[in-house]
Amino acid sequence: MSFKLTILGCNSAVPSLERHPTAQLLNANERFFLIDCGEGTQVRLREYQLNFQRINHIFISHLHGDHYFGLIGLICSMHLLGRNKDLHIYAHQELKAIIDLQLSASNTELNYPLFFHPISEDIDQVLYEDEKISISNMILNHTINCSGFIFKEKKSKRKIIKDKIEKLNIPFDKYNGIKEGADWIADSGVIIKNNEITIKNTPVHSYAFCTDTLYNEALIEKIKGIDLLYHEATFKKDLADRAKQTGHSTTSEAATIAKKSSVKNLLIGHFSKRYKNLDELLLESKDVFKNTYLAKSGLVLDFNNLSS
Amino acid sequence: MSFKLTILGCNSAVPSLERHPTAQLLNANERFFLIDCGEGTQVRLREYQLNFQRINHIFISHLHGDHYFGLIGLICSMHLLGRNKDLHIYAHQELKAIIDLQLSASNTELNYPLFFHPISEDIDQVLYEDEKISISNMILNHTINCSGFIFKEKKSKRKIIKDKIEKLNIPFDKYNGIKEGADWIADSGVIIKNNEITIKNTPVHSYAFCTDTLYNEALIEKIKGIDLLYHEATFKKDLADRAKQTGHSTTSEAATIAKKSSVKNLLIGHFSKRYKNLDELLLESKDVFKNTYLAKSGLVLDFNNLSS
Repeated sequence: MSFKLTILGCNSAVPSLERHPTAQLLNANERFFLIDCGEGTQVRLREYQLNFQRINHIFISHLHGDHYFGLIGLICSMHLLGRNKDLHIYAHQELKAIIDLQLSASNTELNYPLFFHPISEDIDQVLYEDEKISISNMILNHTINCSGFIFKEKKSKRKIIKDKIEKLNIPFDKYNGIKEGADWIADSGVIIKNNEITIKNTPVHSYAFCTDTLYNEALIEKIKGIDLLYHEATFKKDLADRAKQTGHSTTSEAATIAKKSSVKNLLIGHFSKRYKNLDELLLESKDVFKNTYLAKSGLVLDFNNLSS
Repeated sequence: MSFKLTILGCNSAVPSLERHPTAQLLNANERFFLIDCGEGTQVRLREYQLNFQRINHIFISHLHGDHYFGLIGLICSMHLLGRNKDLHIYAHQELKAIIDLQLSASNTELNYPLFFHPISEDIDQVLYEDEKISISNMILNHTINCSGFIFKEKKSKRKIIKDKIEKLNIPFDKYNGIKEGADWIADSGVIIKNNEITIKNTPVHSYAFCTDTLYNEALIEKIKGIDLLYHEATFKKDLADRAKQTGHSTTSEAATIAKKSSVKNLLIGHFSKRYKNLDELLLESKDVFKNTYLAKSGLVLDFNNLSS
């Protein structure tokens, strides 16, 4: 299935002209999930020609402004542009009062239903699930309540080889079982192995979003083997103390988490504004974990083209 | 004195890539006043190389998001970038709770003192005054409480003609009276008229900011003869009904207010996103009031070069 991540912003703390605050859009087979929503996110979505009315689920990691100050503007623009379908927001509880107060101050009654789903402060839970994907939070270790998110496509059923199934006169009501892996026992008693009458379906993808966080080995088990890990790397490794003081990670810490959890690819971001050129951050991370990518606004990562 | 207005954004309702939501910076002799602060204002200030730490007073007309959603980000960036001097915000009361709630959710205690000055909902008052300038609100007529602002430089004292004053042996302690217009009576009893020993000082400037508002003749007396009137012109004149329904004005209504109040120049803005090309709006306004300018991001109007 198609599974693509677009980086809308990847800077920490203060927005600049070229590097925008955190926001990412995950397109999982034409389901659009927005992850964080720093100031200006709605303009970035326009810039990259991503129709924001197609977003039905928004996940906010924590309530530092560089991760959500663009949300109220997006909610209002969706309203002003005639949205009428549901919007689901997953965030820490305090955000609900902030949204409500701003809608009330402008005397706005949204045209569409907005559902607010509070994220637990202390346990990891499934936040959203349908037949194709499951999305969970994972507690991070920052200066305020902060949550990462794991997106996992569900294992798809096997595909029937139509010609063979028809030749064997397998009745239609057995198809589902066979798609789920059952063998077929012919009238003669001969067992036809499932892999003779089905083929594997498309691979499933997984993505973990970890920002903002201290180096935290508790994450390793949770993200084991994931296709792509986004891990913040606010600082270069020489500023490990500064990272610790501010609840952040360095490049080499991000890469160490990637290595220890055997993820397939690492995307680093949330860069401090002090770094004008990000190449050194990439090199530092690659030193520890080769398959590292550097987040930048407009970058699109197609999971079908990543190392597997 | 130098008196310059920079347009940071001039669109209504929904931000677009090229046209940003309302924000303006008035530089009155190196005092910087920010008027409205739509989403992305801090990035616009960077784009035009205007140091936002020099802003000490922010005026918010009303609590529709396109006029203030960028404020909390600006407040936080000022904090993160080490501000320690006072910041004064003038806005309707509800904004205080919105700011407080967002600072509390991120566990932020600002490094600098933030003073909140509520704007009256029903009377015009002086909001700020010093020896050089006076700033007042004026009640507008919109769908929620909304205020315009009038900036008036104070009449400056006359300048002494040094040579003449010295020749007449006028003592130093009389200088102030003479700067304020007093004649000089010489020992001989001869009266030296003030205009023989002083010259006019630099002209004073005035600016009125009117957004968002219905056509409202109550404004005329308040803005009589002002140097520059910013008046919203959300719609072309064929959409007068739509303007009325939404609490806005048309081009010709803005220009009629300018004409009836004998202002010297008119700047129209707050354009509906439906207008790709704004030339027709300018023409419609010029039909009624010749000295019309079109607001666009980055436009700088120097009051010393405007028609007077």
